[in-house]
Amino acid sequence: MFYHRKELQFHAKPDRPDPVYAKKLQEILGGQFGEISVAMQYLFQGWNARGDEKYKDLIMDTGTEELGHIEMISTMIARLLDDAPVKEQEKAAENPVIESILGGMNPHHAIVSGLGAMPENSTGVPWNAGYIVASGNLVSDMRANLNAESQGRLQVARLYEMTDDSGVRKMLSFLLARDTMHQNQWIAALKELEEKYGTTVPGTVPAEWEATEFSYDLMNFSDGEDSKKGSWASGKTPDGKGEFGYVQEPKAHGGKQELKPAPYYAHGTPPVEK
Amino acid sequence: MFYHRKELQFHAKPDRPDPVYAKKLQEILGGQFGEISVAMQYLFQGWNARGDEKYKDLIMDTGTEELGHIEMISTMIARLLDDAPVKEQEKAAENPVIESILGGMNPHHAIVSGLGAMPENSTGVPWNAGYIVASGNLVSDMRANLNAESQGRLQVARLYEMTDDSGVRKMLSFLLARDTMHQNQWIAALKELEEKYGTTVPGTVPAEWEATEFSYDLMNFSDGEDSKKGSWASGKTPDGKGEFGYVQEPKAHGGKQELKPAPYYAHGTPPVEK
Amino acid sequence: MFYHRKELQFHAKPDRPDPVYAKKLQEILGGQFGEISVAMQYLFQGWNARGDEKYKDLIMDTGTEELGHIEMISTMIARLLDDAPVKEQEKAAENPVIESILGGMNPHHAIVSGLGAMPENSTGVPWNAGYIVASGNLVSDMRANLNAESQGRLQVARLYEMTDDSGVRKMLSFLLARDTMHQNQWIAALKELEEKYGTTVPGTVPAEWEATEFSYDLMNFSDGEDSKKGSWASGKTPDGKGEFGYVQEPKAHGGKQELKPAPYYAHGTPPVEK
Amino acid sequence: MFYHRKELQFHAKPDRPDPVYAKKLQEILGGQFGEISVAMQYLFQGWNARGDEKYKDLIMDTGTEELGHIEMISTMIARLLDDAPVKEQEKAAENPVIESILGGMNPHHAIVSGLGAMPENSTGVPWNAGYIVASGNLVSDMRANLNAESQGRLQVARLYEMTDDSGVRKMLSFLLARDTMHQNQWIAALKELEEKYGTTVPGTVPAEWEATEFSYDLMNFSDGEDSKKGSWASGKTPDGKGEFGYVQEPKAHGGKQELKPAPYYAHGTPPVEK
Amino acid sequence: MFYHRKELQFHAKPDRPDPVYAKKLQEILGGQFGEISVAMQYLFQGWNARGDEKYKDLIMDTGTEELGHIEMISTMIARLLDDAPVKEQEKAAENPVIESILGGMNPHHAIVSGLGAMPENSTGVPWNAGYIVASGNLVSDMRANLNAESQGRLQVARLYEMTDDSGVRKMLSFLLARDTMHQNQWIAALKELEEKYGTTVPGTVPAEWEATEFSYDLMNFSDGEDSKKGSWASGKTPDGKGEFGYVQEPKAHGGKQELKPAPYYAHGTPPVEK
Amino acid sequence: MFYHRKELQFHAKPDRPDPVYAKKLQEILGGQFGEISVAMQYLFQGWNARGDEKYKDLIMDTGTEELGHIEMISTMIARLLDDAPVKEQEKAAENPVIESILGGMNPHHAIVSGLGAMPENSTGVPWNAGYIVASGNLVSDMRANLNAESQGRLQVARLYEMTDDSGVRKMLSFLLARDTMHQNQWIAALKELEEKYGTTVPGTVPAEWEATEFSYDLMNFSDGEDSKKGSWASGKTPDGKGEFGYVQEPKAHGGKQELKPAPYYAHGTPPVEK
Repeated sequence: MFYHRKELQFHAKPDRPDPVYAKKLQEILGGQFGEISVAMQYLFQGWNARGDEKYKDLIMDTGTEELGHIEMISTMIARLLDDAPVKEQEKAAENPVIESILGGMNPHHAIVSGLGAMPENSTGVPWNAGYIVASGNLVSDMRANLNAESQGRLQVARLYEMTDDSGVRKMLSFLLARDTMHQNQWIAALKELEEKYGTTVPGTVPAEWEATEFSYDLMNFSDGEDSKKGSWASGKTPDGKGEFGYVQEPKAHGGKQELKPAPYYAHGTPPVEK
Repeated sequence: MFYHRKELQFHAKPDRPDPVYAKKLQEILGGQFGEISVAMQYLFQGWNARGDEKYKDLIMDTGTEELGHIEMISTMIARLLDDAPVKEQEKAAENPVIESILGGMNPHHAIVSGLGAMPENSTGVPWNAGYIVASGNLVSDMRANLNAESQGRLQVARLYEMTDDSGVRKMLSFLLARDTMHQNQWIAALKELEEKYGTTVPGTVPAEWEATEFSYDLMNFSDGEDSKKGSWASGKTPDGKGEFGYVQEPKAHGGKQELKPAPYYAHGTPPVEK
Repeated sequence: MFYHRKELQFHAKPDRPDPVYAKKLQEILGGQFGEISVAMQYLFQGWNARGDEKYKDLIMDTGTEELGHIEMISTMIARLLDDAPVKEQEKAAENPVIESILGGMNPHHAIVSGLGAMPENSTGVPWNAGYIVASGNLVSDMRANLNAESQGRLQVARLYEMTDDSGVRKMLSFLLARDTMHQNQWIAALKELEEKYGTTVPGTVPAEWEATEFSYDLMNFSDGEDSKKGSWASGKTPDGKGEFGYVQEPKAHGGKQELKPAPYYAHGTPPVEK
Repeated sequence: MFYHRKELQFHAKPDRPDPVYAKKLQEILGGQFGEISVAMQYLFQGWNARGDEKYKDLIMDTGTEELGHIEMISTMIARLLDDAPVKEQEKAAENPVIESILGGMNPHHAIVSGLGAMPENSTGVPWNAGYIVASGNLVSDMRANLNAESQGRLQVARLYEMTDDSGVRKMLSFLLARDTMHQNQWIAALKELEEKYGTTVPGTVPAEWEATEFSYDLMNFSDGEDSKKGSWASGKTPDGKGEFGYVQEPKAHGGKQELKPAPYYAHGTPPVEK
Repeated sequence: MFYHRKELQFHAKPDRPDPVYAKKLQEILGGQFGEISVAMQYLFQGWNARGDEKYKDLIMDTGTEELGHIEMISTMIARLLDDAPVKEQEKAAENPVIESILGGMNPHHAIVSGLGAMPENSTGVPWNAGYIVASGNLVSDMRANLNAESQGRLQVARLYEMTDDSGVRKMLSFLLARDTMHQNQWIAALKELEEKYGTTVPGTVPAEWEATEFSYDLMNFSDGEDSKKGSWASGKTPDGKGEFGYVQEPKAHGGKQELKPAPYYAHGTPPVEK
Repeated sequence: MFYHRKELQFHAKPDRPDPVYAKKLQEILGGQFGEISVAMQYLFQGWNARGDEKYKDLIMDTGTEELGHIEMISTMIARLLDDAPVKEQEKAAENPVIESILGGMNPHHAIVSGLGAMPENSTGVPWNAGYIVASGNLVSDMRANLNAESQGRLQVARLYEMTDDSGVRKMLSFLLARDTMHQNQWIAALKELEEKYGTTVPGTVPAEWEATEFSYDLMNFSDGEDSKKGSWASGKTPDGKGEFGYVQEPKAHGGKQELKPAPYYAHGTPPVEK
């Protein structure tokens, strides 16, 4: 069960209107690695967690914080839209800067939300739940989380470069900091979990299920042998169970890719007699 | 540029038809973490890589291999559909096992592809590119890759549990092995890269951009303090730059979430006078 | 900013496992009118609200409550999946009831989430933000809200019919009650707002913008005249500004639907000379 | 069965080309509340209607009219694209107004449709049927319809503000008028239906299915008590069956959100012994 | 502008309820090549047609007919759902045939549409406009149309195989016939158009735009030379302008796939100095 | 199984940066008829092909080539983004050309991919597999392929018009050529196949399944009789089995579109007594 407090977690006031930047900021609200994604990903992971209260609580702490980040960025977007020009009048058309704002902003901000944030990314594609993951396996989900916070902080850094509005940058400085924390916490949790359950996910697969002769070889499917120089092509494997190998010319083990003729009722070609 | 060889990388022959299982197997073909996802993710990462030939080659080797995995699983699905019952006749309706196959298989396998694989997941949702990531930052993309191979191997293990067909299990044993390799290689690459560029992505953010007073604190937004017991709530942070803290009662720093009244031309409520 | 409490708002314990019903229950979690939709719709409306604190607070109260409903239904789904059969073994295939469960459940529950809820609807389509609306106009958004709660309660009632599990029905009885409240509150709010701003949205359109000769006529585009018998075909209009009329044979006022030939650079047919 | 007449229902001729505005106009063609949505929504409601010929005819009249509106707006978009600049030549790049048109128009209008309308919204997202509703319950569907016409007319009003082309405005004046009618007719129909079937949808739920002690209370989940001042927090409820209450501190009734450990075959963490 | 007549174009009465088949029939209503697709594709082509009234009229005739087919199949689906079992009661669970119907039908038919058709395909994915094409080039659009009617008739034939309900088969026999006509008419139109505009679309590309040394060679990118035996590997080309060639070992002409290092502001790896 | 060679199939070097054009070029990479579509369509057709090695090899040759085209266009996009302005600084805002570039480029190119190609179309919508077709029937799939290459070459021609960058045009000249070949080869293959299997797909439908009295008539559903003048309204049909007819006033054969009242458990209106 949730409670809401009306104050924002951090400042979200731009110096001036900037509807084109508002469009771009949508990426970290409703994009693949935006705040809706991390909030929903963590909450579903938390609700689906079976056992291990310590991790579940960590996940719920963070998921709930992210709800507040959606709120913060939504507020910033709405404020960047205050006093945005929206009228495409003939005289506007003579002012190329206004004209380029009219063409460069997200039309939904004017037509659909009435100068508010939209639950969509920077190209106007609605957020969808195909972005998130909650697998019931904590090692693998912590990796998903570490990835999400890495991509997210990278996008915040790029957006920081793309404006010189000090109010916007202030909010982004907070998000950079929280993403630093979240990357660090997921790394710490991952370290604990990998020590318990192994680095290869899932750790519960019996050896006899696996064609282990293929478990540690890099296969050279792209010409050039630069990849042979890496730490992944020789030496002990990170899971401590094997030695990396390098296969210069990977072989086909599975025979020709061919299928039986289709039955008549499939109406394929060539048709089989009825 | 690519070349194709008609032999399969590994065996893909089931013991017997099983159209209901064919539906489930679609998950690792066209699902969020299926083979289309990893193939496309790695290829786009490789093509977008700027510099660092060693990593680029590793990524292209792996991406090209995954194209062969799409082929292998597609073949298996088509073969699982051989001799599938598709006619919903009155007499079939009297045989509950046949009836449950008719209701439990993916209708596309009968109606759309004519007993072939579909580029979609186990619930029949078409694959889409919103699943993948190629950010231009290798540390962060290696984390995406490690996550993808972890989720992927987890799903393969679950599918292994869900059948006792020895031919299907044979193919899955190969996929388990290759996913073991791919997890290990991304971990190895990640270790190299983190040593060079730091564990917090992106490593290029100047300290003065970040509100560092918020960079290492866990905030307790979900009641209970189980999360305080983890390695992420005290002690040195993995990036070696701070000490984890724990904030019992997180504060709001951003003032009230409120917006200016909408202008007349937004036609919101309350309306502002024209 | 949000806080989370670990107790559920209401009971969410089924009497027994039922993975096929778990699939169906996904509709009110991640479907068009599921709890994710109402939570996100209300929160975005609240954050985008400009002025009128009374309505904003009502919306935020309700949106925050709905977050707790997502949690409650997610929990129920996970519990319905406890002890679900997932192995498609030959002997299972001989038990038609087990076979029909294996074919009738959502494969994601076994393969992707590891017996947890998914952020998707009852056919396995991921939730997307194209379902929701936050327009900045309260009259129109209250209508969206009333619609959402009406469709939602209708679906809960149908799901109630589809099970006789007393634990599931208990939870549904709570959702029926809250949807009763939410329908009533949006009706009450709507009444207030319509009195202030008129029943035709938006109330701010000047009369001279509108081709008012077409504002109150029902046009008979489908043969038969049953529609003429309704209260919408004669008498005073609800907005108090007109009289309903009925146009037996609607006319075309706009001339022929034809376009200029395409320029050469469009490469259409017929091609225009360069 | 349908027949088509080649004349447009109303004028659709702009004064001059305006490809940037053509992009924006796509919202009311292929957006969430565009003409494709209302046409498809009403037609599916009509076809699915069981009984009540009077309402079915009204719905089919209106759905068929909306098909003509798709045609009208498509025509307008194609005409706004006549003589659009599409060549990105170096000299164009020196003219910032042309450059901003080239960047601000929908690329599909030049590349995909050859200067014709697209079945997509103003950000270029294809229309999808997840926008519409046809539930088989007329009270609830009339609310969906009233919402659709309210959101639609709001968007038309905003688009009217965004141009001063008298030809475009003429067409919009007709759409404003028809949306006025459609709002009024759905309100009239809703009034009739609510009198018959009650205001709480569906009216067929027996009292004993509902946890009625929760049916009329507003719960204060967002701090501040502004929402207590509304007509929804005290007094008789609109359905005439209860009294509104206000719960200052909402309670959790459902116990701790926790799940049983996952079985071994789910390969979650912590793993259960096999 | 459109008019609607309440009679169906053809019979749509099944012999008996069959909710599992109703799910499958959704494919030709709301699938990639279902009736919504062809109706919308033809109507958009007609509205976007520039000149050539003869073709435009043909397209509009057919698009308008397809609206009636949506109606016919929707009606059939609703009737197949009459008297469908929806209650998952303990005693039902003991009847494996009922159980397999409960698991095999589309849950939306019970929960969302109240026993009506849904605008979605046989796996429950909503129709979207990304399926259709209206390019402004008639040769290319006639090919799209011929493809659509071919895929559509193929699916109807497969669905015919999947039932022995004589009422359903009667309706399908009509659809088979109309798809025969539509394939024939598009072939006839295509023949006319290709004679005028050439077989290579678009016919308006000047020879000097094209690297014609690559215009007629089959390149052997998949091992084996079976493809060399076809009519496409030697002899005169269908466009009458060249001779087919066969390239045994295709060459790379474009140099190494490599990119410049990323600038600092992209925060990629390796990072460029600021 | 696939192998990758690092050289590009053809040149992909622009003369100068052009981020706005980079956005447009995405259409032929990740749009409905972009290179991802044709690669995936052909590969799935090849893998699903049952028998007929000659066609299967042709399809695999072409599908594999298209993988190289994805690579080529991705490289071009990345290079068009080199040295793109991304900073929205106040001084930039004073330069309208830079401002229009900032508003006109795809924000993902700066924020998400770090100056690399995205797997999405020119409006930023991710590629999805709902675009492609692999039906198991070669006649019908060759028509899909011919359509895809026709739409694709049309889009390339339009993009050629939209730039005067000689490096970009060079790459497009190669794509125009390959699309010429691909159109010609599919026409040649189609001719062979139609001779064997007939022009009406699928050729395996027995005459008694079809309501042949409707198989060759054009029905006049749109007013005006221009369509009567075409080769599709009289004379022998292309399949050689009938005579085209023209139905001036199409009739309804299917009786009134009406449904039985809904059962109580559907909670529709009007409600049926329990």
